[in-house]
Parts: sequence; structure tokens; C-alpha cells
Amino acid sequence: MVAGRAGGEVMVRSPGRFTEISQDECLELMATTTVGWLAFVDAEGQQLLPVNFVLHGQDVYFRTMSGSAISSLADGHDDVAFAVDHHDDIYQKGWDVMARGTTARVDDPDLVAQVAAGARPRPWAPGERDVLIVLRPSVISGRRVRRQ
Amino acid sequence: MVAGRAGGEVMVRSPGRFTEISQDECLELMATTTVGWLAFVDAEGQQLLPVNFVLHGQDVYFRTMSGSAISSLADGHDDVAFAVDHHDDIYQKGWDVMARGTTARVDDPDLVAQVAAGARPRPWAPGERDVLIVLRPSVISGRRVRRQ
Repeated sequence: MVAGRAGGEVMVRSPGRFTEISQDECLELMATTTVGWLAFVDAEGQQLLPVNFVLHGQDVYFRTMSGSAISSLADGHDDVAFAVDHHDDIYQKGWDVMARGTTARVDDPDLVAQVAAGARPRPWAPGERDVLIVLRPSVISGRRVRRQ
Repeated sequence: MVAGRAGGEVMVRSPGRFTEISQDECLELMATTTVGWLAFVDAEGQQLLPVNFVLHGQDVYFRTMSGSAISSLADGHDDVAFAVDHHDDIYQKGWDVMARGTTARVDDPDLVAQVAAGARPRPWAPGERDVLIVLRPSVISGRRVRRQ
């Protein structure tokens, strides 16, 4: 990192580099993990919440409890972002993938059963989750970053 | 996980548990990592972006390039969420911390120098970063979660 000061500003140049990830590889990377972040605005303002998820095709499924902040997404939300990442501090490289789209409640019994069958591992967080929500991405993007 | 079906719904109960984290410990945990997520809405809609950051007191500092999506936060944004987490798949436990507040550009030369001096490690991502932004949290919350 080269840092210099000029007129109260700091200029930083990093030798790292980005590599864009194809959509297929984004989906493969998403499938390697089970915890992601959900970002959306509700009546309380900007929300940013960790969530256990299951990927099914290109769609992201997550369960929540009635009355939770996330459960409002079951009523339909037209602009929700979801992201997962992995960063290795030892090798100083990582990746992140972001999906953005709309959400809806899932009621179709066959789909509920399919998602439940594929739901491994079980959520770490406690509580009963009786609402199944799907995020259908309109955009999926990702990148690898390494420091050198 | 106990999953049953009734009327097209799936009910999931997890044996895991949450523990709320004090604000002091939230800050200690935030200081253990250097990559977080920023969530905010701009003219393009919901943004959810990974960012290298430095914690200074209770404030979160990050640099960006002029013209980037994050650089719009330099003009002042009244509702930005920032989050970091760590989840250990082996021991099946983890924590997440979220801070929410307002952002502004940092121009004070002394503060710019202080943040630059404390900025380790350097960003992994490439490019020149000439805009320093601060997120001043009005709310900081966190929790530990373990599966059993």
C-alpha cells in the first residue's frame, strides 16, 4: 500500500486484483456455504441480517419465524440483496457473490418438500421457522480478489 | 432439525441458541477482522457491497475510489448498515455484529492521518482510493450463535 497526503486527502493504491466470476461459478461458490447476508429496507429502515439459506437452482431459500424482521419478505419485496463471501486471511485471497431480486412466500407443497429435503446443514440459530421465503435473483455477480 | 409438513408448510426447530453481545464486546469482535458488508439504498436501488474497513473508536472508516458505488456515501447518507461476522463450520459456532448509522466524508487532515496510520492490513482489492468515509453508528448490536 502506498499512502500519501495531499490537501487533507489520503491516496491509497493496492497491488491486489479482481477477477470477475461467471454466473455458473457464482452458483457453485454459493453452494459451498450455508450462511449469507440479507439486505432490504422495511418500515424500520435499512436491514442487514445474517441468514441460513439453501440454494435450489438459481433461487435462494430461507426459513424464518412469523413476526421476525425477515418474515416481512414473505409479503413480497421488489428489491432485496443477498450476499455470501469467503476470505482467507492466511493466503490473502477471497471471493464474494451477490444476488439481487424479488422475494415471495413459498406455499407450493412439492417445492417446500424439495427444499426441506435439501436443507443441510440445519440452522444454527434457535427457534421454530414456519415461513419459507424464496429470493429469485434478477442479477447474480461475483468476483475473486487476491492481494497480489 | 425436526421438519414436519402440515398444510403445505414446513416447521423447523433448531436446538441452537443465541447470546446477545455487549456493545464493548461487539467493538472488540469488529476489530478482529478487516472485511465487512455495507448495505444502503442509492439511485440504483439496494446495494450490498464488501468493504475493507478500519475501526477507530466506535466509528467505521473505509476508503473508496471517486465514482464508485460506495463513494456516494461521502455526500452523506442517513441510513447505512454495516456488518461483520465469523462462523466456524468445524465447531459450529459463530458471531455477527451489525452497526447502523449515518455516513459522511472525512476531510480533517489529522483524522485522515490517524486512520491511515492504523490502517492494517492494506486492502486486498486493487485501485486507488482517494475518498475516506466514516460511518457513525447510532446502533451497534451483536450475537453469538452455536448449534447446540
